[in-house]
Amino acid sequence: MMILSLSLQSNDILKAVNSTVLANTSVKTPKYIFYFIGDGMGTSQRQISEYYLQEISGDKDKKLVMNTFPHSAINTTHSLNTLITDSAAAGTALATGHKTNNGVISKDVEGNNLKTLIESAEEKGMATGLASTTRITHATPAVFASHNESRGNENDIAVDFLDSGVDYIVGGGVRHFLPMDFTDNQTDAFGGKIYSKRKDDKNVLADFRNEGYTVRYGVKGAEEFRNDVFKKGDKYLNLFTASHLPYTIDDENNDKYHVPTLAEITSKGIDLLSKDEDGFFFMIEGGRIDHACHPNDPSGTIMDTLAFDKAVEEAYEFYKKHPQDTLIIVVGDHETGGLGMGVNTDYFLNLQELEKAIMSIEEFQGSYTGDRKEYYNLIGEKFGLTELSDEEKAIIDKGMDMVDKEIIDPGNAYKYDEAAMAVTHVLSERAGIYWTSYAHTATQIPMSAIGVGAENYNGFMDNTTIAEITAKIAGLELN
Amino acid sequence: MMILSLSLQSNDILKAVNSTVLANTSVKTPKYIFYFIGDGMGTSQRQISEYYLQEISGDKDKKLVMNTFPHSAINTTHSLNTLITDSAAAGTALATGHKTNNGVISKDVEGNNLKTLIESAEEKGMATGLASTTRITHATPAVFASHNESRGNENDIAVDFLDSGVDYIVGGGVRHFLPMDFTDNQTDAFGGKIYSKRKDDKNVLADFRNEGYTVRYGVKGAEEFRNDVFKKGDKYLNLFTASHLPYTIDDENNDKYHVPTLAEITSKGIDLLSKDEDGFFFMIEGGRIDHACHPNDPSGTIMDTLAFDKAVEEAYEFYKKHPQDTLIIVVGDHETGGLGMGVNTDYFLNLQELEKAIMSIEEFQGSYTGDRKEYYNLIGEKFGLTELSDEEKAIIDKGMDMVDKEIIDPGNAYKYDEAAMAVTHVLSERAGIYWTSYAHTATQIPMSAIGVGAENYNGFMDNTTIAEITAKIAGLELN
Repeated sequence: MMILSLSLQSNDILKAVNSTVLANTSVKTPKYIFYFIGDGMGTSQRQISEYYLQEISGDKDKKLVMNTFPHSAINTTHSLNTLITDSAAAGTALATGHKTNNGVISKDVEGNNLKTLIESAEEKGMATGLASTTRITHATPAVFASHNESRGNENDIAVDFLDSGVDYIVGGGVRHFLPMDFTDNQTDAFGGKIYSKRKDDKNVLADFRNEGYTVRYGVKGAEEFRNDVFKKGDKYLNLFTASHLPYTIDDENNDKYHVPTLAEITSKGIDLLSKDEDGFFFMIEGGRIDHACHPNDPSGTIMDTLAFDKAVEEAYEFYKKHPQDTLIIVVGDHETGGLGMGVNTDYFLNLQELEKAIMSIEEFQGSYTGDRKEYYNLIGEKFGLTELSDEEKAIIDKGMDMVDKEIIDPGNAYKYDEAAMAVTHVLSERAGIYWTSYAHTATQIPMSAIGVGAENYNGFMDNTTIAEITAKIAGLELN
Repeated sequence: MMILSLSLQSNDILKAVNSTVLANTSVKTPKYIFYFIGDGMGTSQRQISEYYLQEISGDKDKKLVMNTFPHSAINTTHSLNTLITDSAAAGTALATGHKTNNGVISKDVEGNNLKTLIESAEEKGMATGLASTTRITHATPAVFASHNESRGNENDIAVDFLDSGVDYIVGGGVRHFLPMDFTDNQTDAFGGKIYSKRKDDKNVLADFRNEGYTVRYGVKGAEEFRNDVFKKGDKYLNLFTASHLPYTIDDENNDKYHVPTLAEITSKGIDLLSKDEDGFFFMIEGGRIDHACHPNDPSGTIMDTLAFDKAVEEAYEFYKKHPQDTLIIVVGDHETGGLGMGVNTDYFLNLQELEKAIMSIEEFQGSYTGDRKEYYNLIGEKFGLTELSDEEKAIIDKGMDMVDKEIIDPGNAYKYDEAAMAVTHVLSERAGIYWTSYAHTATQIPMSAIGVGAENYNGFMDNTTIAEITAKIAGLELN
């Protein structure tokens, strides 16, 4: 490679390196492939979670499992039509090796389907799995097993999954699989109502059952999940909640409900998929890291990143048993929130301030209903925000003023509850951090890898290159 | 390594990997080592500069040279006493392989000197160079060739350089080398006054001359620099300015002065150092990237990052001629500013907005002197901020109000001109970006490497590990 590069312009070197790398990857093909995606997970999300872990454990050497992997690369994430990608375009790049416009699910801009790694793995006879903490029809899982011009068409995406052949589908979002007007006397796994978002009478769950899947959902699905035993060739669909799975911070602080964690979902998936002698391709998304970052929720972000890392750890335990056959890669799709691990002119973080938080900001939204004293009590109880400084009080009061007057900041296009945003910003500032956006950012993000072929992920790589290299390593074909 | 890791806990794996990596590095030792440090350069600084380059060139495939290097790693940057490092502690880690407290120059907390890579290279008989766009006594260059309990003691650091044996010392900061009350009838290379900050009559420049150095400074030093021809064994000190070199954006938009760029300084350094048959160790700092990020100056940040990359390109050109003997590593020391490449809820960057800026924010500070109409004209002229929206006007007016009333935001502990901060924040927001801090952040940062031994930089590595690996690769000894 070094000799090769002698005659190259600097801008050509990456391509040359990649070609050389790819040319060398035919030596050994991993049988078991884990493709972890931390949605919204940039450098700060990975770092703040590790420092938080060190802070609360008192062990300054403690590391996230994913941060111990020996190989790393830096990824660019822009989509075809903008430098700030969404999860559909970023996911499409990671799943197919092609750029597309924001909002598009594994199609090019002419509307042609782009073949995904999972589809290619299916063709090759490998077992395949899709797991996420979001609705399974949400952008990131969707791009691996469906094609749609818009990520919003989740009802169509649910139907599209039917033909995917994916063997293990576990997460949230049963509402897109149930016929309209569906009612049920069980709740979902987090106590929510089970409802349908479909506009037709199609029972996609029944269709999956007809395709030979064991189909489960709701709170019963979560119970059965723990007892389900798999045999080779089983196909399994289990959607615990109507919409997304709960935030980890909400689940962990709830006495009544305990929804299977991403680690449990990963472990169970390994159990099923590893029975296939042709190996597996398993995509696992930590989807709510992004969701917590959108409303700038620091503790929600950290707890879901740690839960994601626990899922990575399950794969790593498997890797340790099959080091000659396993590849684990851990990527993000983009950074969310512009999380800055420093605020004002201070040189200290106070991450212990986040330990008192017991609720996600999204769950907390709408808590201010006009009673300011009650709200002050509530933010003490849920986020440890007591003994407020005058400045902090002014911020919270302003948030409540805005709710009272029904004013939304022009930059807050998602219309987050301004009183809750005041709370999360005060909490962030106490922890020594801050945010620049309620949306995604265009910064480059880190990835990690371990196992067979992991050395091929290196340097600065576009997100499309990750898919290309993975395909090459795994002997999969993309368009 | 994979087999090794079977019996290891996940937290031990990085150490095991590093040991394995280090054990394998004895095969080939690079003769020529470039150690580039982009001060304050995190993922966003590298990414925004590349996207800006693509935007203004119209070439969407254009890359920073450093972003094309085949090897990369992710670095943690915390110091011994805080998660948010300063440049002294971060530099000490990169120069010596040891953590120390913020503010300390290559000493441990007991006050013992920590041996630096440059000192070790000197012992080995290699030629050595230190170049920076800051005062050469500023923290980052200082840690490589001096030891002090405080980065503030720049007069002592200047004297300490005398014993360092460094062969090529080029940058700014002659004020710490001149006896107190020194006057001169030349200006510095950017038209500034030449003055002394020393509290004694010591003429450190004369001392360097006595040690056999060719010594130059000021505007004459800059002129002579361009014509100086080196022969083997020459020692050279040239400090163009009293304090830091100008920001690239100020230099490029100044008709009267042109200070040698970091690329020119790098090229000239290569010329001198490469004459030594024992090879060289050359530290080159892009020091003003950090300086631009502190007052949240987007165009200043980008222009100095691009200038830094041009210096990397000089090294890369040398590498192409000596691929079997050269190692280039490009690191940052920490991120500055919490630069988020996204603001509010928008998914588009408008980096072309930054093209109209022709002055650094630091140079611009103090421009508001009470005449609001004049100030509005000025921000149009210097930053292209015309046709302001009501919201933008309100921000600028508030900044001017604060100056009028001599109010400084409590988070603005560096007391940046609030009217200038209003300007840079409006400009940032127009470009689609924002900042969380006037100080550093604790996020992990990317590094890149190419050449002999470059494959050893990989995965997540603490900043101390970079120094350790470099020492091992180069056959240098640290404490």
